[in-house]
Amino acid sequence: MRDNELCRLLGIEKPIIQGGMAWIADAKLAAAVSEAGGLGIISAMNAGADYVADQIDKIRTLTDKPFGVNVMLMSPHADEVARILVHKKVPVVTTGAGSPSKYMPEWLAAGITVMPVVASVAMAKNAERCGAAAVIAEGQESGGHIGELTTLTLVPQVCDAVNIPVVAAGGIADGRGMAAAFMLGAVGVQMGTRFLVAKECGVHQTYKDMVLKASDISTVVTGRRFQASSCRCIKNKFSRGFLKTEYLPETTAEDIAELGVGALRLAAVEGDRDRGCFLAGQISGMVNREMTAREIVDEVYNGCISLLKGAN
Amino acid sequence: MRDNELCRLLGIEKPIIQGGMAWIADAKLAAAVSEAGGLGIISAMNAGADYVADQIDKIRTLTDKPFGVNVMLMSPHADEVARILVHKKVPVVTTGAGSPSKYMPEWLAAGITVMPVVASVAMAKNAERCGAAAVIAEGQESGGHIGELTTLTLVPQVCDAVNIPVVAAGGIADGRGMAAAFMLGAVGVQMGTRFLVAKECGVHQTYKDMVLKASDISTVVTGRRFQASSCRCIKNKFSRGFLKTEYLPETTAEDIAELGVGALRLAAVEGDRDRGCFLAGQISGMVNREMTAREIVDEVYNGCISLLKGAN
Repeated sequence: MRDNELCRLLGIEKPIIQGGMAWIADAKLAAAVSEAGGLGIISAMNAGADYVADQIDKIRTLTDKPFGVNVMLMSPHADEVARILVHKKVPVVTTGAGSPSKYMPEWLAAGITVMPVVASVAMAKNAERCGAAAVIAEGQESGGHIGELTTLTLVPQVCDAVNIPVVAAGGIADGRGMAAAFMLGAVGVQMGTRFLVAKECGVHQTYKDMVLKASDISTVVTGRRFQASSCRCIKNKFSRGFLKTEYLPETTAEDIAELGVGALRLAAVEGDRDRGCFLAGQISGMVNREMTAREIVDEVYNGCISLLKGAN
Repeated sequence: MRDNELCRLLGIEKPIIQGGMAWIADAKLAAAVSEAGGLGIISAMNAGADYVADQIDKIRTLTDKPFGVNVMLMSPHADEVARILVHKKVPVVTTGAGSPSKYMPEWLAAGITVMPVVASVAMAKNAERCGAAAVIAEGQESGGHIGELTTLTLVPQVCDAVNIPVVAAGGIADGRGMAAAFMLGAVGVQMGTRFLVAKECGVHQTYKDMVLKASDISTVVTGRRFQASSCRCIKNKFSRGFLKTEYLPETTAEDIAELGVGALRLAAVEGDRDRGCFLAGQISGMVNREMTAREIVDEVYNGCISLLKGAN
C-alpha cells in the first residue's frame, strides 16, 4: 500500500475517493475528504458553470490538496461545465452517465487526470481508448444511477480488460470492503454512502438519519423497467409510489423521467421524508454513525491495512 | 487457511463448496468436487425421494469423502426428500428458497450439518436460531433464483449479525473472488457457474458453450416484477420473451410461474438454445475454459492463497 498506484497518480495519501453525489458532494465535504488524505469530489450534477466555478474557488480556500469534480454527462450544462474545468485547472475529473470521449481531448490537453465511472467492460475499454488515467468500476449495489453488474463481478472483469488502474466503487463501507476490492485487483476505492453521513456533509439531517437507520434491505431500485434509468434509493413513500407508477401499463419512459424531477433536492435540501428521493447504497445497513471525514478515511484505511497484513 | 473453520466443520480439505444447481448438480459432479477436496452437492431440485436416494447411493460408490444434498424448500416433494436425507444419513444439507425451520429438529437429531442459503440478514438470523451450523450468504450476482443484496454487501452484514460461520456465494469464479470473500469475513465460498463447465459436469454441451462464450453483460434477471421469483439467466430467445411477457399489463404472477415450467430441463438436458432457461451468474464472462473439478478447485484455492500471502 505504501507505493500505491492511485496515490501516485492523484498525489494523495490514501487511495480512497469520495463519490460525487448530486446535491450532496459540495466543496466543504470534498475539502474535508482531501484534507483527510483521500480525494474529495465536488458534484457538478445538473448545475451550470457558475455554480461549479464557485465550488472550485471555495474548495481552494479550504484545502491545498488535490480534489476532483464529477461531471454528469447527461446534464444540459455538461458542455459549459467541461470548459470551466479546463479554465479552472481542476486536477481530477470523474464522469458519470455515459462516455466522456467528446471532452477528452480538451481535458487531456489541460493536463487533467480523468477517471470515468464505468459499469461494464465495454465502457471501461472505451474510457481507456480515449485516454482515461484510470476507471472507477461501480457495481449496482451503489446508490444513485446504477448498471447491472455487481462490484464483485465487475471489478475483476474490468481489471482483465484494461491496462489502466481500476478503482472499485459500490458496496464499500469499511476496511473489509476495501480489502476485498484490493483482492479483486483494484488499486483504490470510491465510497459515497459512507461519506454522506460525514460530519462535514451538509446534507439534510433527515437524509443522514434515513441512512443511519437503514437495514440491509432498506434500498430499492426504481426505473428498471425502462433500462438505463435504474436508480437505487431508500424505500419510502416516494420510491414506493414511483415503483407503482413505473409498472402501470400506460406509463411511458417520459412519465418516469418527469416523476423524478426535483426529488433529489427535496431529499438532500428539504429533508422531505415522503416526497424526497434518498439515493443510498446497499451498505446503508452498515453505516450507523456520523463521524468526521478524517475518522472515516482513517477507520476504513486502517481496517483494510490490518486485514491485508493479517491475511497470510 | 490451514486451520479453516469450514474445513473442520465439514471434514473437507479446501473450503470450496459446489452449488446445488438444479438439473446440473448430480452425483457425478458432486463426487468429482468432493474427491478434489471441496464439498460436492447433489441437487434434489423438484425431484422425488427415489431420485435423491439413487443419487446418494451413486455418490457413495464414487467417493468416500463428505458430500451434501441441496433441498429446494418450495419443491412439492420437500417433505419426503427431507426424510430420505435422514434415512440415508447424509452428512451435509444445504437449503434454498425459504426457511428450513420445519425440518431442522429431525435433521439435527440425525447429526446432519445444515447450511441454509440466505439472501438477507433476517434469513441468516433465522437460520442461526433454528440450529444451522453455518450459512451460505448468496448475492444476486449468482445464477438462478436470487435475492436483492449483492455478495459484497450481504456477506459483511451477515457476518456482523450471526455467530456461526459464513460462506460467501454469488460472483465468485477465481482466487480473486475467494480472497475477497475472506476479506469480507467469510470462511469459505460456494461456486455454481464455475463448476457448471467442469469436465465431470454432465449438463448439455450447449449449456456449457453458452457460459464459456458469455461476456460480462450476458445475463439478465427475469421475474423481478413479481418479487420472490427473480431469476438470473443468460440472455436468449427464452429470457427475452419472458421479460416481454412479464411486463405486459395483463400478465399475472401465475402466468409467470407457468412460463418457466420445463425451461430448465430444456436447457440442461436438451441443450435447447432458444427455448431453454440457462441459469448462470454474472461471472460467466470470466469462465472461459472447461477444466476438471480438481483443476478448478486447485486453481481457485491456490490463486486465493497466493493473493492472501502477497497481501501485506
